[in-house]
Amino acid sequence: MRCIKLTIAYEGTRFSGWQRQQGQQTVQGCVEAAWKSITGEDVPVTGSSRTDAGVHALAQAAAVKTETKIECNKIKRGLNAKLPEEIVILNAEEASLDFDVISDTKRKRYKYQIHNSRTRRVFGRAFFWYVPQELNVENMHAAAQALVGKHDFSSFESVGSPRDSSVRTIFDAVVYRGQGEESEEIFIEIEGDGFLYNMVRAIAGTLYKVGRGLRTVEWMTEVVEAKDRCTAGETAPAEGLFLIRIDY
Amino acid sequence: MRCIKLTIAYEGTRFSGWQRQQGQQTVQGCVEAAWKSITGEDVPVTGSSRTDAGVHALAQAAAVKTETKIECNKIKRGLNAKLPEEIVILNAEEASLDFDVISDTKRKRYKYQIHNSRTRRVFGRAFFWYVPQELNVENMHAAAQALVGKHDFSSFESVGSPRDSSVRTIFDAVVYRGQGEESEEIFIEIEGDGFLYNMVRAIAGTLYKVGRGLRTVEWMTEVVEAKDRCTAGETAPAEGLFLIRIDY
Repeated sequence: MRCIKLTIAYEGTRFSGWQRQQGQQTVQGCVEAAWKSITGEDVPVTGSSRTDAGVHALAQAAAVKTETKIECNKIKRGLNAKLPEEIVILNAEEASLDFDVISDTKRKRYKYQIHNSRTRRVFGRAFFWYVPQELNVENMHAAAQALVGKHDFSSFESVGSPRDSSVRTIFDAVVYRGQGEESEEIFIEIEGDGFLYNMVRAIAGTLYKVGRGLRTVEWMTEVVEAKDRCTAGETAPAEGLFLIRIDY
Repeated sequence: MRCIKLTIAYEGTRFSGWQRQQGQQTVQGCVEAAWKSITGEDVPVTGSSRTDAGVHALAQAAAVKTETKIECNKIKRGLNAKLPEEIVILNAEEASLDFDVISDTKRKRYKYQIHNSRTRRVFGRAFFWYVPQELNVENMHAAAQALVGKHDFSSFESVGSPRDSSVRTIFDAVVYRGQGEESEEIFIEIEGDGFLYNMVRAIAGTLYKVGRGLRTVEWMTEVVEAKDRCTAGETAPAEGLFLIRIDY
């Protein structure tokens, strides 16, 4: 028996998220089908993050317990030859048999992309939330600092998805413009020890309200303290969200 | 009567090129339909470059002779509200009535994008020619210098498209890697007073042979001098080509 750790990039646009679901196109479903076609094994490919429908990943982590003798480099090439063009295996490596791709996760980093311009864009439009109104990035960044630390993030957790605890630790939260003062791109990056269902998108929708000037910077602290999803902003669209890194 | 000059960006992927054709989705057809729906006028929107099926533009130029009294800013916004998401009007401005969007062109600049990596990419894959084999960028750049100057470019002109003359002047030709020595992106940029049918793609396909080491740097001069399409490389895929600038 071996454990193989995979690092996977995908464009989520046409997938119903990571997790295998009967009758749906999912990233996990595609990777498991590709795995079967190169090894003959019908085994689960367990992902670290259950990214939602439409969400993208630069580096999802996944693990497979396998009997195959195929070496890692050939696994990578074999899977890539079978996978659709929206999914690519960036790396396949040996992991110890007791590696747990979910609970061994130390940190995850997400990036949320906003295109902020009066004129919509053509290139990359599938990867940005388009906001035509002016946004104050400095205020959004200041407000995001209220997230840093260990908090109960119930205000940013979509209902209908109970987890053991809504407490998570956020290590870093930054909001910045793309290169150049005139850039039309705004990025939100958040790193934490874990995230609740829809948490980053709810944070993006909440920071948007601050950016628009509809709420103050200080309001963000109130939202965190309220522990009530209704106090925060709307869930921002999936297309702007990228899982960019997972550390073990 | 007024003349309105439009600057247009588009993703060419699902279009049969710029030029209006019966029964085909074309960029010109879409812009003319949008024009009609905001002004009621059934008039031609003349483009400076007849980009091919699948070719993209960051800044195509087009002109319309019109009786409309709608101001430029409202024309821009009105067209953008009607156009599909792959096409956007970046600018609409008054031009003099004797402005000729084709013959008044001074310079055009094209960019050809190659993704050069053993592993295919997910993001931006629709905008790069994927070449897994190693390419020598220095040699490609050196070979490209044979293009600079006034030459008969028959070797890079697709057959079945006679023009008055195959002589064009190339002002600048550069081949470079994206940021960082390790970048997987290679760009070819070529600026000239005009281009023949499929010329940039034929040049890209020819420079590819030099990059692979299948031909020498000096061979490029022979290809230019041969004035024979058969001596050059294959026509590179449309998806990597961008019309990036037109100067008047």
